[in-house]
Amino acid sequence: MADDDALVIFTPSGKRGRVARGTPVLQAARQLGVDLDSVCGMRGICSKCQITPGYGEFPKHGVHVKPDALSEWNAVEERYDRVRGLKEGRRLGCQARIMGDVVIDVPRESQVHKQVVRKEADARPIVMDPATRLYYVEVAEPDMHVPTGDLERLKAALKDQWEIPEISANLDVLRQLQPALRKGEWKVTVALSQGNHDAHPRLIDIWPGFYEGRLYGLAVDLGSTTIAAHLVDLRNGSVAASAGVMNPQIRFGEDLMSRVSYAMMNPGGDVEMTRAVREALDGLAEDLAEAAKIEPPQIVEAVIVCNPVMHHLLLGIDPVELGQAPFALAVSSALDLQAPDLQLSAINPRAGIYILPCIAGHVGADCAAVALAEQPQKSEDMVLIVDVGTNAELLLGNKEKVVACSSPTGPAFEGAQISSGQRAAPGAIERIEIDPVTKEPRFRVIGCDIWSDQPGFQEAIAGTGITGICGSGIIEAVAEMRMAGIVDAKGLIGSAAQVGTPRMVAQGRTHSYLIHDASPDGGPIISVTQGDIRAIQLAKSALYAGARLLMDELGIDTVDRVVLAGAFGAHISPKHAMAIGMIPDVALENVISAGNAAGTGARIALCNTEARSEIEAVVRGIHKVETAIEPRFQEHFVNANALPHATDPFPHLNAIVPLPDVSFNIGSDREGGRRRRR
Amino acid sequence: MADDDALVIFTPSGKRGRVARGTPVLQAARQLGVDLDSVCGMRGICSKCQITPGYGEFPKHGVHVKPDALSEWNAVEERYDRVRGLKEGRRLGCQARIMGDVVIDVPRESQVHKQVVRKEADARPIVMDPATRLYYVEVAEPDMHVPTGDLERLKAALKDQWEIPEISANLDVLRQLQPALRKGEWKVTVALSQGNHDAHPRLIDIWPGFYEGRLYGLAVDLGSTTIAAHLVDLRNGSVAASAGVMNPQIRFGEDLMSRVSYAMMNPGGDVEMTRAVREALDGLAEDLAEAAKIEPPQIVEAVIVCNPVMHHLLLGIDPVELGQAPFALAVSSALDLQAPDLQLSAINPRAGIYILPCIAGHVGADCAAVALAEQPQKSEDMVLIVDVGTNAELLLGNKEKVVACSSPTGPAFEGAQISSGQRAAPGAIERIEIDPVTKEPRFRVIGCDIWSDQPGFQEAIAGTGITGICGSGIIEAVAEMRMAGIVDAKGLIGSAAQVGTPRMVAQGRTHSYLIHDASPDGGPIISVTQGDIRAIQLAKSALYAGARLLMDELGIDTVDRVVLAGAFGAHISPKHAMAIGMIPDVALENVISAGNAAGTGARIALCNTEARSEIEAVVRGIHKVETAIEPRFQEHFVNANALPHATDPFPHLNAIVPLPDVSFNIGSDREGGRRRRR
Repeated sequence: MADDDALVIFTPSGKRGRVARGTPVLQAARQLGVDLDSVCGMRGICSKCQITPGYGEFPKHGVHVKPDALSEWNAVEERYDRVRGLKEGRRLGCQARIMGDVVIDVPRESQVHKQVVRKEADARPIVMDPATRLYYVEVAEPDMHVPTGDLERLKAALKDQWEIPEISANLDVLRQLQPALRKGEWKVTVALSQGNHDAHPRLIDIWPGFYEGRLYGLAVDLGSTTIAAHLVDLRNGSVAASAGVMNPQIRFGEDLMSRVSYAMMNPGGDVEMTRAVREALDGLAEDLAEAAKIEPPQIVEAVIVCNPVMHHLLLGIDPVELGQAPFALAVSSALDLQAPDLQLSAINPRAGIYILPCIAGHVGADCAAVALAEQPQKSEDMVLIVDVGTNAELLLGNKEKVVACSSPTGPAFEGAQISSGQRAAPGAIERIEIDPVTKEPRFRVIGCDIWSDQPGFQEAIAGTGITGICGSGIIEAVAEMRMAGIVDAKGLIGSAAQVGTPRMVAQGRTHSYLIHDASPDGGPIISVTQGDIRAIQLAKSALYAGARLLMDELGIDTVDRVVLAGAFGAHISPKHAMAIGMIPDVALENVISAGNAAGTGARIALCNTEARSEIEAVVRGIHKVETAIEPRFQEHFVNANALPHATDPFPHLNAIVPLPDVSFNIGSDREGGRRRRR
Repeated sequence: MADDDALVIFTPSGKRGRVARGTPVLQAARQLGVDLDSVCGMRGICSKCQITPGYGEFPKHGVHVKPDALSEWNAVEERYDRVRGLKEGRRLGCQARIMGDVVIDVPRESQVHKQVVRKEADARPIVMDPATRLYYVEVAEPDMHVPTGDLERLKAALKDQWEIPEISANLDVLRQLQPALRKGEWKVTVALSQGNHDAHPRLIDIWPGFYEGRLYGLAVDLGSTTIAAHLVDLRNGSVAASAGVMNPQIRFGEDLMSRVSYAMMNPGGDVEMTRAVREALDGLAEDLAEAAKIEPPQIVEAVIVCNPVMHHLLLGIDPVELGQAPFALAVSSALDLQAPDLQLSAINPRAGIYILPCIAGHVGADCAAVALAEQPQKSEDMVLIVDVGTNAELLLGNKEKVVACSSPTGPAFEGAQISSGQRAAPGAIERIEIDPVTKEPRFRVIGCDIWSDQPGFQEAIAGTGITGICGSGIIEAVAEMRMAGIVDAKGLIGSAAQVGTPRMVAQGRTHSYLIHDASPDGGPIISVTQGDIRAIQLAKSALYAGARLLMDELGIDTVDRVVLAGAFGAHISPKHAMAIGMIPDVALENVISAGNAAGTGARIALCNTEARSEIEAVVRGIHKVETAIEPRFQEHFVNANALPHATDPFPHLNAIVPLPDVSFNIGSDREGGRRRRR
């Protein structure tokens, strides 16, 4: 190699190459395709391009780095160090020049496309590549002899200094342009959003001089019951603040179909619901900005995931068509909107809003987000992903094919329509065990780590009391009752005589099982009634039947792995879920909770624009099965009514839990079954 | 040729070719590139594809057309004729099939790209090619097994039936999509706007079934004083209604610079002015829709032209930078906006709004529109185009090069700052002649065709009276005074003794010329004062100096042709304008009035999208001369102060009018000149 060349090796990427002596490190990084950040464009202002040179012997790379491998500190670096401080051993990549063979480490914070590790152990990391980035530019001053507009000169500067050939700008940001340019003495920082698909980058905001602030995005999981949002730092993907509120549409109807009915029966009802949810979203954004102590204009993007009804109500589209076959969506593709489209005023008025695609009229953008987070289309094994909620959404497949459906489980899994049911809140029973011999229960309530039969329990729960059973608690209760021989395979509760405990209380022709009597303290009597069992049976049958239909579609009888998604899914005990036959039989260790996978999917789409194109392609490839018109759904539903199942074998389950072969009161069974199923 | 082919000749295009027998005429037209309209896509609904077959001998084309050259009427044609009626001899091009050699005439109304003849004799016609068109489509019904959204199926139909690969849709139109599709039983008519540049066509509106209505556009000339708008039928370019209102910003300042000052001195003043002009525009649109008896959503486009200050105030950009050197525009390029951007609610909420590019900080989109209408860049001879107004905008050039400038003429040409001046309105003197012997004037007032010395004048003007002199009147008055020897070359008015008429009235050290004394009837005394002469001298000197600077730029001393644009320009007498040296000397027949050329330019850009790209390119090529910083401007200005000019010869003028070599009162001249020039 020529003598005026030097070898440079970048770590951790390992990328290496020869560059002309005197080349700034940042420029060398660009030449070699090394991911090294810069906002100010080689001006020594932003310090995003900090690097750590290594000196001495590097046998691994076969190179010896001399002390003078990089140029001496120049005035720009010295001033930066004096004013802002550079960490020991660091240099500014745009100022330090390569004078000899050198090994350069790019610390994590200097990488644009840094990987963000997710909490879930086996989840792939998110690679940072947000749509919106900052660019510092020096704009030519106006010249009467070449009378172009300020915007045109800003565009020329971006083309010249950042190789961005064209941008678009909303009218309202033009109002800020002239004052910002003059205040910054023709130096400004602009935020540009690289829109989805083939649109030009869009001018989101402009600040005089070098902007020190950070950019944030909102990841929103807009559920029927709750709206959860994370404020995400777009530089490193970290969550700066999180918040959740009840969906204010609850006042129009607890579940989705009652909201659709509200829209059908009240002219303008959909408009009212649209306003309510947009206001809630705006309030949430405001709270998050306040919590993170940032200015609303710093929130430059949002990604929203939701089910189809919420999707239409958020967009201002009457959801009436989603309430009846053929459940036609007005629009199914992903949407690129802007803050004013959704009347959001607590974020940047030019903020882009990305809404993931819907899969079908009952399988929404939330399910698409789950797919983005869980990647069934890349799975080697056959995975069933269940997003448990009022309407369960199911994905089944592997890298060959993915199928999806929704199943009308109803709200029983959330504690609704259960005699002692309640939302998951302090005081609610969430865990329960029943002694198979004595039939005595022990339990734990939310907000307390002590079991009810342990010392100190009474004191510990004094503040909350014992108020009811939440969704995960009722699943455990039914499963434990089945495992303890209190309930038979058909779902019938035995009498005190049949079961042998006074906890069995006759109620007309059926029985209930008393878990806790708080009435001496003025609290409720908490028990599981025959009606509760029937409600759970209906819900779990629907869920299982949906899964079974998908398995039919793929021609399989077993799955390798079950992922429970949804906030509620995170609290379900896999063993108990399987014991009631809520999910197909599978090795217990292969039932995994993915937490709020929809919310995670939203965060991924926020941090990485490529993920948006990816999920759009994936959704196009997902085959949808419509449970409402599948003739086999009813058959699967009926068979799934038993605990755990009338016909499917549950070998993994049988190996780990006893399922006593009891049978109670045939007559009453038929009666109850018929009454409930109607 | 094969026997199953037939020769088809289309007139008036003359396009000819062979097509398979049985080919529908519309399809044949498409194959041969013949301009034949269709909205319904071969369904016999829209009747836009009507054609007239010719039968018998056509020696010119060398073809004999047999009576059975076209297929028999089919059921669709018969039904259309029964229900709606087809003109004698017409057929539906989508139904009639070519069975033998035939000559087919495409009537004008069946051509998409029909030419619209402009009023001006020598102007090139406008070729209709508006951005927004209607498309009738049949959309697939939703299918639960292929759960795409209604929008996606509409897109598929447009791709399939109209070869439109992709469209974009604003969120708000999606709300209309589902009801329209169902009401129209999956047949709808959509309006698509083919945006400027490389954007996808945008969904403007949707109607159930076949939409019978027409689409309209607004062509707006937004002036400092008046806002004029035409409602144009986008099918044939005809003007359905016209209206004008005063610019409500007048209350913030008569001229542009006083409005800029208002914005500078009153925080929020620009916002107030922006609101005022947008409201006025909206009201104008509402009036026009009412006048033409159409619904506001039928107005699917607007094109706006205006000067730079109005441009910024309309866009909501503070115009303060335009009030001081270097007169930097915030944005100079053409803009593609939408109705809500300008808070226009009286037109379609998705209507596209195109604003022509500005040439420079003082040379606006109105001047670009003049260039579009007058095409100096295609001129064989050297043409000077003057848009006369408060701020005159000038274009000079030919097909080699075009230069532009603005010149601060002030409002004198509009009758302001003139002692008896007034706006052009009934009662204002607009024409005047002075007898060179008796020095007696005769005149005509606006609203009356009779000269003041003709019988019946008094009766004819009884309703209006004689109220003042308008802009064109004052030019004639000054010119006639010069030609009658009442004013000398330096602009001094002679005394009664010097001129020899008692109409000369002493006013301090100067004199005025009495035109009409209406005071016996309680009206004003109308005269031309020394101050009026000075005001006109200042205005015309500025205009001439601007033209001279442009001539310097091109290195020429004479021009071939002068075009007077602007509504005011239409009323100026070329002879009188030249007599005062307002425009360069040129053969009188080569001074042409272009009427409201800016408004015409707006109409062209509305009717023909190609014209938008064209003017954007032309504007980029126009070289701008900034009068404010050109050292020679002052010299040209001073020399142009004389009537007609101190140094430039006016041979054409001298050949047609006498310019008496009089000279009055040297001392007073200096005094008056100094006082006024300060």
